[in-house]
Amino acid sequence: MTTNEALVLRQTDARGVVRLTLNRPNAFNSLSEDMLAALQAELDAIAKDESARVVVLAASGKAFCAGHDLKEMRAEPSLDYYQKLFAQCAQMMLTVQKLPVPVIARVHGIATAAGCQLVAMCDLAVASRDARFAVSGVNLGLFCSTPSVALSRNLPRKAAFEMLVTGAFISADEAQAKGLVNRVAEPDQLDAAVEALAASIVAKPRVALAMGKALFYRQLEKGIAAAYDDAGQTMACNMMDDSALEGVQAFIDKRPPRWGQPH
Amino acid sequence: MTTNEALVLRQTDARGVVRLTLNRPNAFNSLSEDMLAALQAELDAIAKDESARVVVLAASGKAFCAGHDLKEMRAEPSLDYYQKLFAQCAQMMLTVQKLPVPVIARVHGIATAAGCQLVAMCDLAVASRDARFAVSGVNLGLFCSTPSVALSRNLPRKAAFEMLVTGAFISADEAQAKGLVNRVAEPDQLDAAVEALAASIVAKPRVALAMGKALFYRQLEKGIAAAYDDAGQTMACNMMDDSALEGVQAFIDKRPPRWGQPH
Amino acid sequence: MTTNEALVLRQTDARGVVRLTLNRPNAFNSLSEDMLAALQAELDAIAKDESARVVVLAASGKAFCAGHDLKEMRAEPSLDYYQKLFAQCAQMMLTVQKLPVPVIARVHGIATAAGCQLVAMCDLAVASRDARFAVSGVNLGLFCSTPSVALSRNLPRKAAFEMLVTGAFISADEAQAKGLVNRVAEPDQLDAAVEALAASIVAKPRVALAMGKALFYRQLEKGIAAAYDDAGQTMACNMMDDSALEGVQAFIDKRPPRWGQPH
Repeated sequence: MTTNEALVLRQTDARGVVRLTLNRPNAFNSLSEDMLAALQAELDAIAKDESARVVVLAASGKAFCAGHDLKEMRAEPSLDYYQKLFAQCAQMMLTVQKLPVPVIARVHGIATAAGCQLVAMCDLAVASRDARFAVSGVNLGLFCSTPSVALSRNLPRKAAFEMLVTGAFISADEAQAKGLVNRVAEPDQLDAAVEALAASIVAKPRVALAMGKALFYRQLEKGIAAAYDDAGQTMACNMMDDSALEGVQAFIDKRPPRWGQPH
Repeated sequence: MTTNEALVLRQTDARGVVRLTLNRPNAFNSLSEDMLAALQAELDAIAKDESARVVVLAASGKAFCAGHDLKEMRAEPSLDYYQKLFAQCAQMMLTVQKLPVPVIARVHGIATAAGCQLVAMCDLAVASRDARFAVSGVNLGLFCSTPSVALSRNLPRKAAFEMLVTGAFISADEAQAKGLVNRVAEPDQLDAAVEALAASIVAKPRVALAMGKALFYRQLEKGIAAAYDDAGQTMACNMMDDSALEGVQAFIDKRPPRWGQPH
Repeated sequence: MTTNEALVLRQTDARGVVRLTLNRPNAFNSLSEDMLAALQAELDAIAKDESARVVVLAASGKAFCAGHDLKEMRAEPSLDYYQKLFAQCAQMMLTVQKLPVPVIARVHGIATAAGCQLVAMCDLAVASRDARFAVSGVNLGLFCSTPSVALSRNLPRKAAFEMLVTGAFISADEAQAKGLVNRVAEPDQLDAAVEALAASIVAKPRVALAMGKALFYRQLEKGIAAAYDDAGQTMACNMMDDSALEGVQAFIDKRPPRWGQPH
């Protein structure tokens, strides 16, 4: 077991469902530099692993993630250090979005500051009914500026702003109503709810999801005409792929598609 | 009756309410090349017709629209063909948005893939309580990339992503909660609900709606300062129009505006 | 009392909560040129006043704000005049967003046209249960183009479009569900609800809120990678500020932060 494996546990099943578990429970899984590096290493490895099909990002202990490691962050203050730290963190967050497979946050306990940001950056999120979310840096005089990038791309503007200036918690149900999480489950049904999404994803061809996910985030940053140009090109390439040709033919023939493994 | 009229029925009332009905019920009104061309021709004609005031986009048979015609699409696969097909479809979708009159989708049954995209591209949408929506291409290995352009501009990001990777249906009520449709009506009240919106629209001057609709989509793609510059210019031009001068004067005089027909 | 003070009342408490009250109740607080100038002057003064911590934008009489002063606007129509008027109004609206302190709209009665826009431009909004919102210019033949800039950045696209083409009112509860206001309170609890937000804000360091608010709106207009670059830089600077260093240290020491006044 390497240091990475200690800080982030990795479990992969036969279908390619990769479960990454933040494993620093005594520190509420806070994102120390080592934790950020461990997550980055795991995500980079998954990006290159064609057998990986979906990532479930979970956490051990009482909390999902309490954000940056404040003790470490406060130890030797310098502008240069903080610039590097927030750049390291943003790189990891963007790697989640750039990953060729969907990433599902499995959230229990609290998700605060960069921990809340991490939920927002995942493609999908399922929360336990008792989970709570906050961007609480402002309570310490540190506005959650980097989390605001992710939060403001998930929630309506005024709802995001309220969380950022009050630092107050919202419940899992509120998080769902505002768009931060897809589904809320009773604590003992949380894994089943995550599994339902994961099972739906692994039933689809990997290449279609990879092309589609990349296009989804790319087109969001374009005007609608340019977005359609990009999407049309992407969809044409996707359609020429064997799995789509087979899938569409199977639909016409009213039979299940015959996709190999991995597809 | 031309081929266009066969595939797309057009009915126009004295007020300028144009009802276009997708009329390929046995194929769930799928968007074959001919259907796309027929819709394009109708929309282009409406764009030039000053007596048209609002479009209601409806469908005959059990479904609103099931997306592309998969049989036709699968017949002679080539990258070049698919590029042209998706470009043709995107052009029709963008024509809906560029039309000088508001377009209301009247949705019953299912709206899937490019059929769901069509709902998203309309300015307004009213759904029957039993309508269902999905971007289901991923089930066949074909990620709904072009529908994602429209969907991600209607729904919160995670809700759109979930629909795109699961391919699962959402109900009319869910579609309303997520922003895909404006109103949900019982099946026997669907036409009344559409008529209420149409009646509200034809009561306003055409020029104000045309200038406003164009500005609305234009400014969405700009930064807020540039958006205000454009909107201020648009509103100044709108105010100099006879119908606005009369409308504002009528308000001051506490009387109904005396707008001619067409206004 | 100057003319400004007559049109806009200013009340500041010991904590730096500045209450600006639109004070043209007989004209439903409509935004005449003098009212726009008075608001601009007050906002400009607040921007330079380091003791100001939060602005509550309220209104006297039966309405919050009924938009532009139509009588004044109709008196001497010219394109040049309207261009200047809408530019003056947009400048005031953008000043709200650029203000270094959060601005809370306290809404009762009606907020229509540019009055509804003003609510949308505030960072936060609390509405009385009996408040109602509309962008009603289209009823007079004048599409609310400049309000659409603010509205479309608060509400889902189809909900904003519906309000703009129908001109119809929505209730406070609908406004909350659509993202236009943060909270709805019973009329006799409205001030308490506003005070709860204001109290939460003044408990945080001014500099963190100022840096965070500016970054929040700046990053919304950037692609996500550029947004993270900006946010990371902002957060690094924020962390080097004395109040953040003290706040984080206090958190580590499990004690309240010792922030001076003003902080």
